Amino acid sequence: MLKKFNQKITEGFLYTDQYQLAMAQLFFKNGYHEVDAQFDHFFRKYPDYGSHKAGYCINAGLEWFIDWMSNTHITKKDISFLKKHKNSKGKNLFHDDFLKWLERNGSFESVTLKAIPEGRVVHPYEPITVVSGPLAITQILETPLLNQLNYQILIATKASRLKVISRGNKILEFGTRRAQDRGANAGVRAALIGGADFTSNVGISYNLGLPPKGTHAHSMIQFFLSLGYNELDAFNAFADLYPDDCILLVDTIDSLNSGIPNAIKVFEKLKRKGHKPLGIRLDSGDLAFLSIKAAKMLNQAGFDDVSIVLSNELDELNIWQIITQISIEAPKEGLDADSIVNRLVFGVGTNLITSSGNPSLGGVYKLVSVKNDNAWKSTLKISENLEKSTLPGEKNIFRLYDKFDKATADLICSANENINNKSVFLLHHPVEKNVVRKISPKELSSVESLLNDILIDGKLVYEFPSLEIIRSVRDYDLEKLHDGVKRIINPHYYHVSVSEKLILLRQQLTEKIKKQKN
Amino acid sequence: MLKKFNQKITEGFLYTDQYQLAMAQLFFKNGYHEVDAQFDHFFRKYPDYGSHKAGYCINAGLEWFIDWMSNTHITKKDISFLKKHKNSKGKNLFHDDFLKWLERNGSFESVTLKAIPEGRVVHPYEPITVVSGPLAITQILETPLLNQLNYQILIATKASRLKVISRGNKILEFGTRRAQDRGANAGVRAALIGGADFTSNVGISYNLGLPPKGTHAHSMIQFFLSLGYNELDAFNAFADLYPDDCILLVDTIDSLNSGIPNAIKVFEKLKRKGHKPLGIRLDSGDLAFLSIKAAKMLNQAGFDDVSIVLSNELDELNIWQIITQISIEAPKEGLDADSIVNRLVFGVGTNLITSSGNPSLGGVYKLVSVKNDNAWKSTLKISENLEKSTLPGEKNIFRLYDKFDKATADLICSANENINNKSVFLLHHPVEKNVVRKISPKELSSVESLLNDILIDGKLVYEFPSLEIIRSVRDYDLEKLHDGVKRIINPHYYHVSVSEKLILLRQQLTEKIKKQKN
Repeated sequence: MLKKFNQKITEGFLYTDQYQLAMAQLFFKNGYHEVDAQFDHFFRKYPDYGSHKAGYCINAGLEWFIDWMSNTHITKKDISFLKKHKNSKGKNLFHDDFLKWLERNGSFESVTLKAIPEGRVVHPYEPITVVSGPLAITQILETPLLNQLNYQILIATKASRLKVISRGNKILEFGTRRAQDRGANAGVRAALIGGADFTSNVGISYNLGLPPKGTHAHSMIQFFLSLGYNELDAFNAFADLYPDDCILLVDTIDSLNSGIPNAIKVFEKLKRKGHKPLGIRLDSGDLAFLSIKAAKMLNQAGFDDVSIVLSNELDELNIWQIITQISIEAPKEGLDADSIVNRLVFGVGTNLITSSGNPSLGGVYKLVSVKNDNAWKSTLKISENLEKSTLPGEKNIFRLYDKFDKATADLICSANENINNKSVFLLHHPVEKNVVRKISPKELSSVESLLNDILIDGKLVYEFPSLEIIRSVRDYDLEKLHDGVKRIINPHYYHVSVSEKLILLRQQLTEKIKKQKN
Repeated sequence: MLKKFNQKITEGFLYTDQYQLAMAQLFFKNGYHEVDAQFDHFFRKYPDYGSHKAGYCINAGLEWFIDWMSNTHITKKDISFLKKHKNSKGKNLFHDDFLKWLERNGSFESVTLKAIPEGRVVHPYEPITVVSGPLAITQILETPLLNQLNYQILIATKASRLKVISRGNKILEFGTRRAQDRGANAGVRAALIGGADFTSNVGISYNLGLPPKGTHAHSMIQFFLSLGYNELDAFNAFADLYPDDCILLVDTIDSLNSGIPNAIKVFEKLKRKGHKPLGIRLDSGDLAFLSIKAAKMLNQAGFDDVSIVLSNELDELNIWQIITQISIEAPKEGLDADSIVNRLVFGVGTNLITSSGNPSLGGVYKLVSVKNDNAWKSTLKISENLEKSTLPGEKNIFRLYDKFDKATADLICSANENINNKSVFLLHHPVEKNVVRKISPKELSSVESLLNDILIDGKLVYEFPSLEIIRSVRDYDLEKLHDGVKRIINPHYYHVSVSEKLILLRQQLTEKIKKQKN
């Protein structure tokens, strides 16, 4: 915990951008601060890693964000800082009347929030999180919401890709040392939601009810060497203490000529004493080649069931390459490729926790509706570029499942549309005009609504699922995706679509705003 | 502040990797836990953004890290979690004797730490942070140290590059919404150290004693439009409230045909009332083209001193391109390019806070010395690849300044080397054998030692400088670098070098360890 760099200030109500407060005061001064407003949180593009890209995202971050919202209130200390904030003339930037209002109302207790649950597959343009409440407060909420949700979606998505390409083999998250400071914890949580089975990070593991994973580092071997002992002595010391949890890092000196032979000696000793050795870890060199050689040596010694843990700058592409290379080369060594691949465990650090190649998700938070004279009025942000326009008003999202029970499209509708009485669904492309797919309800096995009520006027009306349930939701949704959508390179486009009614509303409002220019 | 996701657990003593604790227990069980050990923190490569790369880094993160160390102690709750950690047989992984020791000794009060100060230019292979103390404790410290220092160095470096390429124009940091959750705060701090002048993040600004910066978003205009007002009404409302701090975002509808003309109307009104308008902000479109057009329109209206704030996915390369394009095209419009460039302010979000293109610094923490029989014995990690070998033992780092008072090389020596009595410095390349530069003390204007004592046995012996001082240290060091080293693309290599004595020590120890294999 940081003391000097006071987390109550830096992670509390003022964990936002200055312009949110400047606008909040403006809304207050003009009497708009308590006007009800609705904002959508959505992203426009899947993560694109340059050499490969995502065809879906996994939602994550909601529970932490709601936890933060529920526990965040403006403090007297916050107010005292705001009071001291001077404008360019040395006068107070924030006025007393506004600060008095903010001191009484500076919390998120009045906010209503709907969201797609964590672990679910989500797509561009869909409102993942929908916030409504007093304009000044919902405006201030933009920054912490984007900060907390965008990153977890990004990392859960990356982790899911790793899990898919690893054919379901275990993924261990190792990246805390390469994360953005305390952001590591959110990243680890998201990785565990999206596809990592365990993490090396101790505190967050305990907090989430999982055992942290890890054995020893090169430094342990190096320490024994510095005292005049050798690698085998170090391995023996480790095996003596952890006979039932023995995974040995074999590449400190020379994997094939020292590490693996020494590990086998130690494993034989453990076996004689009735223990089951768990594995070896390779952290350098040609991991595919070394995996085959290691498997051969371990098999010959009768250890064909110990895991081979691989690490060192892994990501989707090199895991795929390693598996492919093993599949081609193992038979040449007289080994069954699948049995090698199935014993692999992947330790992923930097590239997962940073989402290397695409280190941020461009999720945005846009005003879609304003309550005026007791009625919600849809609004939108226009742009020359339709991609950057927003979909106006309150909306529903439906997932359409085809006869094979696969998700065939998501449909974004206005909230007041009745989709049960439609004889045909017109699925408009969200951006490309006149690209329309028609689908009859008869072609569908089911239609599912994706948004859930989470907060109503600040009151929690949702039971947060356990990590286990979130993961089963993720697996269910991935199972429903066509394989092409899950392909890591050049994936098939999933059909995110917009209803006819909503397309027309966007056109009408765009024209109206253009007329309003001056 | 997170309540449910208990920060006392997730950011406290257990904010480390499992293998550190597994090794700590092993050291304890073998009686090595209180053996004094020394670890170096250093990086091997400058950030490489693919299309461009760094030729130096800016050190950052130290004060926050020391603050964390000083306030972090293992808690009863931590111990209770460790007690419940089961091994694969369902037995306690951590033994009572170890936990009893850890409960008494689980803090960093016994650690001695030297470091290069924040704001200083640093280079590969140099120990930036040197930690010594009881082996078990210094081992556990690896993860939080790397987590906290690597990221701040990365971002301070990126911010410095932005400042250099912007010709010293103001840089505003806007990236909180694209950061890794709470990591935003460390990123913002590092950006402010490295080159950003201000940030939009409110809490951290107040904490660091700076005013946060920001005006209004598109959503403010959009809100006014939704009520039937127009852009000019929204601008007027803003100017009425912030007459002396008026920066208007002009691209919500159409920058050239609506936003800028409306801003000029508002500025004229402000001027009549005796206020000085500050600027406009452009957040989309061709920023170079629009800057020229905006400058022309503003100049014609008599506002040739208001700033033009640019934002939208800026980084080193596109800032460079914008400046270049203005330099070429402004004269064609009959305008002075420099006067346009000089009024630019750059708002940088995603690409700064994520260090896009290279989102992590590969800083490592390696055992270099162990105290045995009351004497420090140097040790190292060997590798086939010299780049991955470490430099053994306690070391000093000297910066050598040439006759023009420019930094010409850094020299890494063994701590016990006397460099004052050398008739010639042999500067060995740290990795490439037989690449040696000779330099005579007569060719130098001064030699400076870079490491400072920070903690001695856990006691703080260093006074942390203010942000202002850190920035002046940074400016001083940048001034001493040759321009080629500061070039953003393909920079000239700075001479990081190793003394003859240390090169020989590395060779001897490498041979010794190779013999020790089995």
